[in-house]
Amino acid sequence: MSASRYTYLGPEGTFTEAALRTLPEAATRELVPMVSVPAVLDAVRNGEAGGALVPIENSVEGGVTATLDELATGAPLMIYREVLLPIAFALLVRPGTRLKDVKTVTGHPVAQPQVRKWLRAQLPDALWESSASNADGARLVQEGRFDGAFAGEFAASTYGLEPLVTEIHDAKNAATRFVLVGRPARPAAPTGADKTSAVFWLGDDHPGALLELLQEYAVRGVNLVRIESRPTGEGIGRYCFSVDCEGHITDRRVSEALMGLKRICPQVRFLGSYPRADEVRPQVRPGTTDSEFTDAADWLGRALDGRG
Amino acid sequence: MSASRYTYLGPEGTFTEAALRTLPEAATRELVPMVSVPAVLDAVRNGEAGGALVPIENSVEGGVTATLDELATGAPLMIYREVLLPIAFALLVRPGTRLKDVKTVTGHPVAQPQVRKWLRAQLPDALWESSASNADGARLVQEGRFDGAFAGEFAASTYGLEPLVTEIHDAKNAATRFVLVGRPARPAAPTGADKTSAVFWLGDDHPGALLELLQEYAVRGVNLVRIESRPTGEGIGRYCFSVDCEGHITDRRVSEALMGLKRICPQVRFLGSYPRADEVRPQVRPGTTDSEFTDAADWLGRALDGRG
Amino acid sequence: MSASRYTYLGPEGTFTEAALRTLPEAATRELVPMVSVPAVLDAVRNGEAGGALVPIENSVEGGVTATLDELATGAPLMIYREVLLPIAFALLVRPGTRLKDVKTVTGHPVAQPQVRKWLRAQLPDALWESSASNADGARLVQEGRFDGAFAGEFAASTYGLEPLVTEIHDAKNAATRFVLVGRPARPAAPTGADKTSAVFWLGDDHPGALLELLQEYAVRGVNLVRIESRPTGEGIGRYCFSVDCEGHITDRRVSEALMGLKRICPQVRFLGSYPRADEVRPQVRPGTTDSEFTDAADWLGRALDGRG
Amino acid sequence: MSASRYTYLGPEGTFTEAALRTLPEAATRELVPMVSVPAVLDAVRNGEAGGALVPIENSVEGGVTATLDELATGAPLMIYREVLLPIAFALLVRPGTRLKDVKTVTGHPVAQPQVRKWLRAQLPDALWESSASNADGARLVQEGRFDGAFAGEFAASTYGLEPLVTEIHDAKNAATRFVLVGRPARPAAPTGADKTSAVFWLGDDHPGALLELLQEYAVRGVNLVRIESRPTGEGIGRYCFSVDCEGHITDRRVSEALMGLKRICPQVRFLGSYPRADEVRPQVRPGTTDSEFTDAADWLGRALDGRG
Repeated sequence: MSASRYTYLGPEGTFTEAALRTLPEAATRELVPMVSVPAVLDAVRNGEAGGALVPIENSVEGGVTATLDELATGAPLMIYREVLLPIAFALLVRPGTRLKDVKTVTGHPVAQPQVRKWLRAQLPDALWESSASNADGARLVQEGRFDGAFAGEFAASTYGLEPLVTEIHDAKNAATRFVLVGRPARPAAPTGADKTSAVFWLGDDHPGALLELLQEYAVRGVNLVRIESRPTGEGIGRYCFSVDCEGHITDRRVSEALMGLKRICPQVRFLGSYPRADEVRPQVRPGTTDSEFTDAADWLGRALDGRG
Repeated sequence: MSASRYTYLGPEGTFTEAALRTLPEAATRELVPMVSVPAVLDAVRNGEAGGALVPIENSVEGGVTATLDELATGAPLMIYREVLLPIAFALLVRPGTRLKDVKTVTGHPVAQPQVRKWLRAQLPDALWESSASNADGARLVQEGRFDGAFAGEFAASTYGLEPLVTEIHDAKNAATRFVLVGRPARPAAPTGADKTSAVFWLGDDHPGALLELLQEYAVRGVNLVRIESRPTGEGIGRYCFSVDCEGHITDRRVSEALMGLKRICPQVRFLGSYPRADEVRPQVRPGTTDSEFTDAADWLGRALDGRG
Repeated sequence: MSASRYTYLGPEGTFTEAALRTLPEAATRELVPMVSVPAVLDAVRNGEAGGALVPIENSVEGGVTATLDELATGAPLMIYREVLLPIAFALLVRPGTRLKDVKTVTGHPVAQPQVRKWLRAQLPDALWESSASNADGARLVQEGRFDGAFAGEFAASTYGLEPLVTEIHDAKNAATRFVLVGRPARPAAPTGADKTSAVFWLGDDHPGALLELLQEYAVRGVNLVRIESRPTGEGIGRYCFSVDCEGHITDRRVSEALMGLKRICPQVRFLGSYPRADEVRPQVRPGTTDSEFTDAADWLGRALDGRG
Repeated sequence: MSASRYTYLGPEGTFTEAALRTLPEAATRELVPMVSVPAVLDAVRNGEAGGALVPIENSVEGGVTATLDELATGAPLMIYREVLLPIAFALLVRPGTRLKDVKTVTGHPVAQPQVRKWLRAQLPDALWESSASNADGARLVQEGRFDGAFAGEFAASTYGLEPLVTEIHDAKNAATRFVLVGRPARPAAPTGADKTSAVFWLGDDHPGALLELLQEYAVRGVNLVRIESRPTGEGIGRYCFSVDCEGHITDRRVSEALMGLKRICPQVRFLGSYPRADEVRPQVRPGTTDSEFTDAADWLGRALDGRG
């Protein structure tokens, strides 16, 4: 029953909901907005939901730290899918509001840097105050607390607002990456264009530890797609690393790299292998294909048998 | 005149102000709170202030992205000093409020993860809503919009509140690192316990680029203290790296590493060399001291002269 | 029957024979001297002998190229044992010869640099001419062709000579390393203090190929004991690499390194895993023990099953 | 006067003499054959000769250890030029000798592996005995001690012999590399297609030392042309490394690499920068050209001045 429910970072009308609705299976699920990333993910952890969609990375603001940190700690979760959503904001206002009437604006803190230049140019005197989410900002406009809210155009009708300006985004190619998270299970089958995510804690603070981490990937020809340091919470200067690489855990080059990392890191958390939203297939360096791994293992077997 | 003015991330009563007041020179400066990191730094850029104190990293929440991104772009600025401030929150309430009366709480978004566990344990039903700053949260409590605000204990008196609970921090060793920023000038003289900060853009997206970046440091025996990826704003998957290393730009191992990085990166921004707040002196690997650099240069000179 | 025969680089009275006699099983074998390294090894290849002892490395002269090249090419052979023999020469003369009578001396070309300083000091005017082996030199002295021969003291009686001076060696710690070679079979069981030998051809001539070769070892914590470049015979600038590393092919860190090398090198020849003559046990870096390999494989299995 | 004299590894009629005569300046020098590599080089060291030509590497036999070791130790010398000579042997016999009459053959030990296959095929029963040089072998044939000598065809007339078979070489592209050595002086001016030679001793025996050596080159984009381990004479397992790289010591990427190596190695000997015989110009990796070095130094200067 709960498997038929997906939670997402709400409220209704956020980009997260829009991203979730791009997944075919969303049509057959009950979609439940929740107030925070921890709440969204805890619903999966405790079985109330079968999956959860949360933002993990934004091309302007960077990693969504609540998501990164929730995935890195607490009861294990796994990523099964990613969604890339181009981001453009609309300035939502109460019907009749003109641009010159807009003195106060709101939006999620992550939205601010994405509309900063537009604000400077178009509403240099408007006062920004953050709200808990873009949709929540829309609600606050509905209630009259602010004159305008930056949110997805699709959120306007929910809150009885109208989009005064659309397609606002300081940066071209602005996009947010979302991940569909569930309880740990077998990863989806490899598609040939996959990504593998994991979190690594570096044991002692020896200076070359990050270099060694990267070399475990590099020596097996596994390319990194994203690496992000996150504080471990143990004080300034202590970090763990959240890493996405090309390939699937069942690819031999990836599994050998992960095992190598497992050996040198005091703590590793596998976060899943899943299809890339952009469907880009990796350039696999000669010497690191599955068949070359198999050939090398055969050769080793012969050497062990004296038939080298 | 403006040199005598320091801006900081306000409003009054924030941890940033507390950090700024730990600097001896703060006593002789006019300290001006401003509403946002960009505003604080722009005041330095346009000459209204001689320096600015902004948070750059928190041991719980990680990098302060507004600061990282402002330093990486726009008119160049440089870091001249860092301040480490242990972080403990107080729950500030209007006089007379009891813990059981607290139904709504507020604070800066960065504060939330640092008090999350405490909230779950002590006020599981309290509703959190973010405010623009911890101090702003205190103001909102004063105005009656919330029942309690998480802020520094020192902020209570400013807003007519009282600390109901103090020393709230989910993580031991919680600390925030602040940097004193000014317009580019000669770095402060080396103290023997220094840090050097810079931002690097990796040119093409070739897979080993980050590894090469780290090797420029490693081969000269320069240890990294912090590395953080930040999106360049050009789309998902495009990052620059904000890096702090041990040592001063006038240390030969550091300057050679920086020049090596300048050569392989299409863009590099030097952010300054400054004394470490923790005064930890680096372990300098044999072969990378200044005198060994000088000896090697002498040897090369002799070799070029045929006196090798 | 042939298994009971061991060939060695003769003639009788060479250091190679002395090294062979240090092996317990030599007492029960027919020991057959042969004229050249190729002859010695071909006897094993064609089944005339069960094993062969040949010098492979000398602490003064370096690699014995005939041995290195014969092992690298032709029908495969494997190393099963190594012997380290301290090298000290005696000056063998016909009975009655005094030092001042010695005008001409001989010995194997490899012996010359090991007695060069002694010759300069003691017999500065003596003329050196190389002979095919140290023992052959002794024979030539017996025949009157030379006045003195540098050879092992043990060779004197065979040729009716007497040692005029003993313990001649320019370098302290001078030693020769010999290997016992046989046809390919299962390697000897690991002893905990083993060595593994192999030859690697680097495919194209891309500049970093040697670095990549070393990194396959380094990333698995496998230390090198010896590396020697040898020409492939395809022209100046084309080399293969003969490498000894610590550990046994059944050690997981070694087998994974070998498979990695097999994948990146167009040609690899495994030359055997065998006990170290010096019985030095390797320092195994944390993260590279067999049990850590097993634990990592278990972890991977759980991750693949969704029980990570 | 002595500057007008060049020594070379004799006797007359060796390949070394042929190589020396390819140098234009040889026409105006007195060319003096000497009996051994040490003798040839000592003549330069003590001022009796202005230069010396010695073989350093053979595409079949590998490094000429006497040359490598003499250059690595003793009073410093430098390489000013290299010569590549294709190697083909002639079988020199006394006039009238037919192939079936040849029962004993001789030649320099280095020649043997280059004619081994030919001997097996054409004279399987002929007995090989080494002589001090190819030319010396010719002399021994003249004296009747052997039936045939492998030497350069050009040596026939000197010894009253005739070439019975010519163009004997087991390997295609067989070549020997010779170097013209003199006392240390300013290296020749860079030609754009240069090589730089040096010898490195690795301090302690820490396992990754060779990897670190290679990385000092690699991080500056300097490609290796040849690397050869040589025993230090201090016992099995102790090596130094003789290395040729692309580029000239005045190229910034080369000089910085050499200084880096000087810092990490307890002992370094610069052996010279000189034009490549094959005139191949290096592929210089982006970020390692002289102008990029200069630009980076300018950038650093600006950063130090606060004009970054």
